[in-house]
Amino acid sequence: MKKYQKAVLPLGFKASGISCGIKKSGKLDLALIYSNLPAKAACLFTTNKIKAAPVILCQKNLKQNGSFRAIIANSGNANCFNGSGGLKAASSTVKVLADSLGLKDKNILVASTGIIGRKLPLDKIKFGIPVLIEKLSTSGIKEAKKAIMTTDTFAKEFSVKFKISGKTVTICGIAKGAGMIAPKMATLLVFILTDANINTTVLKGFLRSSVEKSFNSITVDGCMSTNDSVILLANAAAGNKVVSQLGGSKVFLKALDSVCVELAKMIVKDAEGANKFIEIKVSGAKTLKDAKTAALAVANSNLFKTACYGENPNFGRIVSAIGASMVEVREDKLKIRVSPLHKKNILVEVSLGEGRYHTVVYTSDLTPEYIKINAEYN
Amino acid sequence: MKKYQKAVLPLGFKASGISCGIKKSGKLDLALIYSNLPAKAACLFTTNKIKAAPVILCQKNLKQNGSFRAIIANSGNANCFNGSGGLKAASSTVKVLADSLGLKDKNILVASTGIIGRKLPLDKIKFGIPVLIEKLSTSGIKEAKKAIMTTDTFAKEFSVKFKISGKTVTICGIAKGAGMIAPKMATLLVFILTDANINTTVLKGFLRSSVEKSFNSITVDGCMSTNDSVILLANAAAGNKVVSQLGGSKVFLKALDSVCVELAKMIVKDAEGANKFIEIKVSGAKTLKDAKTAALAVANSNLFKTACYGENPNFGRIVSAIGASMVEVREDKLKIRVSPLHKKNILVEVSLGEGRYHTVVYTSDLTPEYIKINAEYN
Repeated sequence: MKKYQKAVLPLGFKASGISCGIKKSGKLDLALIYSNLPAKAACLFTTNKIKAAPVILCQKNLKQNGSFRAIIANSGNANCFNGSGGLKAASSTVKVLADSLGLKDKNILVASTGIIGRKLPLDKIKFGIPVLIEKLSTSGIKEAKKAIMTTDTFAKEFSVKFKISGKTVTICGIAKGAGMIAPKMATLLVFILTDANINTTVLKGFLRSSVEKSFNSITVDGCMSTNDSVILLANAAAGNKVVSQLGGSKVFLKALDSVCVELAKMIVKDAEGANKFIEIKVSGAKTLKDAKTAALAVANSNLFKTACYGENPNFGRIVSAIGASMVEVREDKLKIRVSPLHKKNILVEVSLGEGRYHTVVYTSDLTPEYIKINAEYN
Repeated sequence: MKKYQKAVLPLGFKASGISCGIKKSGKLDLALIYSNLPAKAACLFTTNKIKAAPVILCQKNLKQNGSFRAIIANSGNANCFNGSGGLKAASSTVKVLADSLGLKDKNILVASTGIIGRKLPLDKIKFGIPVLIEKLSTSGIKEAKKAIMTTDTFAKEFSVKFKISGKTVTICGIAKGAGMIAPKMATLLVFILTDANINTTVLKGFLRSSVEKSFNSITVDGCMSTNDSVILLANAAAGNKVVSQLGGSKVFLKALDSVCVELAKMIVKDAEGANKFIEIKVSGAKTLKDAKTAALAVANSNLFKTACYGENPNFGRIVSAIGASMVEVREDKLKIRVSPLHKKNILVEVSLGEGRYHTVVYTSDLTPEYIKINAEYN
């Protein structure tokens, strides 16, 4: 498996990104990903009860249809909490794109990220769509990855190439999300593209598994966005023998894990105001759920995160966070080890001594800079 | 009902507080509350799975016995996560006090607050106990209230007087807990004393009800201590006709509510680094649990708390926190109103539009000062 620290589009995909004027700064704010061939999709969305309009529209399209050709995404406006107008704006965006590309509305997925509660400037998007289509190219992912950024300080991208039945398969991922924080709720958006020939059920199972180990194992401030979306498209252009069983292609799952985990780590590293990258390993849990709960309890503890910022070792805060999380734990079995806090990367190892399950989550420290960014954000 | 912004001991109670040397600063660190008469008790403790030794010992004594004469509490050391040594230290403390007062061990309750994971300096406490007893007086609550403080910047105290069956009854409360934060886990300790003649079952029911509206309705950083204890003693010295039914004395419940809510608000006002006092009212919830869950979700949202600090109104963060809390909520029913953020006191009113239940919780803002205090604490 070859790894690339950049986005390398798989066969049959094109992309583009432009500035259509949603962001006052004039930065890129509209992205398009296009597949020459119909692609199968696996998607995971926010579990927030308040869902943004593009999430609702995607879920509708995914119910009606199993074949997708494009993803359109804007940054600078989350198109959330806008009442029925929000859904109309998302539908109009999709309709204009579908008409321009000669596709059906239901073949398109859509995502937005940015400020909640402001009207989506639909006219700007409509004017932008022909330009986006015009600019589609196999190298256009360079612009697309930037057009989904909000307060991210760098674009997140990662790709892998590997073989299935003698054919080279590529998985390419781009992501944004600088800490569930700054754009009055920073969203996690992840678009993963592959030319693998793979059955939809298997694709969904693999995505769920990989996301659990990556995007569901990171936390910056415990806040969950209304727009979080992970979209995986597979267009079969690689021509490999179809992957049709969950156990059928360990190499595909491993590659997908790799793309998801690398992107997830980049998101934590770009968390607003963060000085430290913290890895929390929990072992000896009675259940996998306990392992995750305990690890996230530590990762979301303001006290622990502040101690990391202050480089002030304090295992009492870890003990207390785990105890409060209500997982199975006893004082005389609990073991905690923390690497030196003055380093950039911190490793916390917790052994619960209750069972055989283990997990790892990633987080950042809590800093005065985090507060400054979020207090002053406008 | 007469209210007093200070601790006024009910009939039959004495108290004292001294410096026995646990705190390096030489500040008061050991407190004793004593009842001339056997008192009934109602107690609520932390639900953290890791419980400090004094909590475990109290729970044991409360199982074995229904009559109490004293509470001994130290600050500066939480006597938690010390293995079996912790429990021995708590038992020894109680034994020395019982012997000195001519009581049985099981008639005594004990509490500790301070740093987790350090050995309790038992010798210092043993030397202090005779002095504590010597100093017991009806005005000694002035020292006792200070001897339970850790990073609190002021002592929390409140009293009420009212009549039951023609007799004057007093309820007096003292508390500490400056934000679940600074002493490597600041504990909530609350001692409430009354001379009311009241049945134990009723006392327990009333305490549970009052705590739900007060100490269980405040949050500073969502972190739960291993030592949290609320202890209520009733010694019947007022000579009123016994209160033996839950509906039997609304005036007692109202008075207890008042003491608990006032102390709880003081704790939030003294939260480390806090600039703002924030009241979050949730109405229209489908269940009472939903109301509390939604209110606490907002109160614990770092994004929301940071917005309050920055005086930067941002209802998207409130919407998102409520949606993520998984309570029943729909975008088209949800209404949010926030008072001007530039004031010291902020009121957030959320109407879920789903039912008839409502609640109120109290919290503070999240500030760079909070991080500074917790990062540098030693």
